Amino acid sequence: MIKSAADMRTELRERMRGGEGTVQIRHVFEQTELKGKCRLFALITLEPNSSIGLHAHESEEEVYYILQGRAKVVDDGEERELKPGDAVLTGDGRSHSIANIGDEALELMAVILTY
Amino acid sequence: MIKSAADMRTELRERMRGGEGTVQIRHVFEQTELKGKCRLFALITLEPNSSIGLHAHESEEEVYYILQGRAKVVDDGEERELKPGDAVLTGDGRSHSIANIGDEALELMAVILTY
Repeated sequence: MIKSAADMRTELRERMRGGEGTVQIRHVFEQTELKGKCRLFALITLEPNSSIGLHAHESEEEVYYILQGRAKVVDDGEERELKPGDAVLTGDGRSHSIANIGDEALELMAVILTY
Repeated sequence: MIKSAADMRTELRERMRGGEGTVQIRHVFEQTELKGKCRLFALITLEPNSSIGLHAHESEEEVYYILQGRAKVVDDGEERELKPGDAVLTGDGRSHSIANIGDEALELMAVILTY
């Protein structure tokens, strides 16, 4: 199945998971389109000063892969600044958060694998 | 688990799946690091005139998400030109191929979900 960017569903979430500002989620493929155990496959955009608050992943794991911008990530209590090409994997009840600490939009791929 | 780009394993494959040139695969997370049913989570780079030949995915599905460059994709017999932001999902025994038809490197995320 080929899907153009223009045909992907986009949603906006305010103060996501207790974070700041607005988060844009572009669903590359919907959960219903995927046969694998994957409940999110999306491109996420955070404008400057926006963030996704700290939250845990139970019975699933999430990969964040940074595409553009500067991120401050907290993963299982470890705080780090990430740049494009860096990634985070959070699961098994652990928690993470991510914030845009740069002057341009922060873009990342977010994939949640369930188990 | 936070992983910097520099700490990801990179491999080079020549004439991958019967394609042309060299394909670089940077493993964002290894299969052994993931608890979900995912056997590949990688950034793939194809230089101009390089390609991955036609191949089928049985009992699994693969997402290609284009990050940079111009791609010619064949998916289940349908041929299309894709640009950054476009995606392909191929599984259930269907086949796909991808070729760099631009003047710059073609970069994509490749995720294989097994089932």
